[in-house]
Amino acid sequence: MNEPDFIAALRSLPLHPGARGLMDDCAVLTLGAETLVITHDMMAEGTHFRADADMADVAWKLVATNLSDLAAKGAEPLGVLLGHTLGRDDARFIKGLEEALDAFGTVLLGGDTIAAAGKRALGLTAIGRATALPVPSRSGAGVGDGVWLTGPVGRAMLGFEGHPDHAGAFCRPVPRLAEGQALAGQVTAMMDVSDGLLLDAFRMAEASGVTLALERAAIPVADPEHFEACVRWGDDYELLFTAPPTAALPVAATRIGTVIPRRSEAPLMLDGAPLSDPAKLGYRHG
Amino acid sequence: MNEPDFIAALRSLPLHPGARGLMDDCAVLTLGAETLVITHDMMAEGTHFRADADMADVAWKLVATNLSDLAAKGAEPLGVLLGHTLGRDDARFIKGLEEALDAFGTVLLGGDTIAAAGKRALGLTAIGRATALPVPSRSGAGVGDGVWLTGPVGRAMLGFEGHPDHAGAFCRPVPRLAEGQALAGQVTAMMDVSDGLLLDAFRMAEASGVTLALERAAIPVADPEHFEACVRWGDDYELLFTAPPTAALPVAATRIGTVIPRRSEAPLMLDGAPLSDPAKLGYRHG
Repeated sequence: MNEPDFIAALRSLPLHPGARGLMDDCAVLTLGAETLVITHDMMAEGTHFRADADMADVAWKLVATNLSDLAAKGAEPLGVLLGHTLGRDDARFIKGLEEALDAFGTVLLGGDTIAAAGKRALGLTAIGRATALPVPSRSGAGVGDGVWLTGPVGRAMLGFEGHPDHAGAFCRPVPRLAEGQALAGQVTAMMDVSDGLLLDAFRMAEASGVTLALERAAIPVADPEHFEACVRWGDDYELLFTAPPTAALPVAATRIGTVIPRRSEAPLMLDGAPLSDPAKLGYRHG
Repeated sequence: MNEPDFIAALRSLPLHPGARGLMDDCAVLTLGAETLVITHDMMAEGTHFRADADMADVAWKLVATNLSDLAAKGAEPLGVLLGHTLGRDDARFIKGLEEALDAFGTVLLGGDTIAAAGKRALGLTAIGRATALPVPSRSGAGVGDGVWLTGPVGRAMLGFEGHPDHAGAFCRPVPRLAEGQALAGQVTAMMDVSDGLLLDAFRMAEASGVTLALERAAIPVADPEHFEACVRWGDDYELLFTAPPTAALPVAATRIGTVIPRRSEAPLMLDGAPLSDPAKLGYRHG
């Protein structure tokens, strides 16, 4: 099966109400007076990192990408469980893991370590505590809301391409945990930009049943000469969110558009032109 | 690094108090009035399942082995997150996943699906709610306690070897969830027997700082003619536990020994003979 078919099949299984129909980045688990936010993301050699990558960077990114999902829910991390396949440069992996846990103020809860032949797969489960209820989802964008972005997109792309000012943006992304917690009570929808601004905005529009009308000139990009690439690359982990236009936002963010009623088959518009084919909105990368 | 070295390095990182020093099967997370029990186990092609295994059985076993860790803590499963690498027979995988979720009364919370080349790695995170406090650990066995086992060992071995009466024991193990919940308030230490009775008993003795003195004639084995293999194979997922000798046990279990003060370097004795080399107590299998 391909990924969409497999996920569609998973949706036919018994789901927890907090699974949000497998449409969101995280599961939300209510337990007494507490609300937990839980996510699990994997990284595989060859797909998500190169065979010669610094394993310290891989460990950092594994933690950062999972915590970015928590950030998009406004959750405070409680800890992570690591699923590790032993291999090359495990000491570097431990080093990067330690640096990431320290940098993001979280701790190891447990996990599993296995030996396996071939390319390595790594998994991380991150568990956080919701700081605002309801926990933001992708599906709450309302007509008339503004659309905001917490920072420029394209920095990870420049880092990947070797630009010295942006090396860390690709290898050592930083989840917007503080921003997510500050915003969680103000937003109508929120997600992290992991797969490209346009593709992720498309997904938010789809989940919310609206159209996001973005303005090209308003979108902050790291490299204006390569605007189209900046808005299609991912890995920047800025937060994309919607909120009432008069919201007093607690963090710096750039308004990049407006939520409008769904325009036929175009969940996304850029300067008034419909963008309806998700295959052209983002792309996979190393 | 090898697995013991890697886990030792992980122990030097910032750990959550509920990580129990990475010495237990699960993490224990206290949240307000609730106590969560969380585990993450992986299975890799070639290491944990054969390249020609029925993927429905693989999915079942992935769920069962994680839920067995919850069973050993007396936890009631709340849901699971799946880390899936796409590949051969994904529809069979979905089928086995559905059957396991139904059989064990739990649901899917979320996860991640990736495409990757080479051998497949699968991960599962299981989250449960503790039903008795303190949550049983491996480290609570006290001198004078009895040592019990909830059922015979060696059935999975016979199933693996093709014995028709035991095929399900290897391919479709059943976590002892009800037994674990019933026992959790009565035991001083508990764990599931996943890596072989002797090796797991050795680990419990090490964690508790005692010696477990087992009696050969008392140990229920599926194939008495191959006693030594039965007590070294694993994958049966019976519960091994200690409790005061006068405890009124709520489930059927066989007393197989007694907890005695630590005898020099022998955490484990069988009919009075010390077994001190963990490398000879269990073995890896397909």
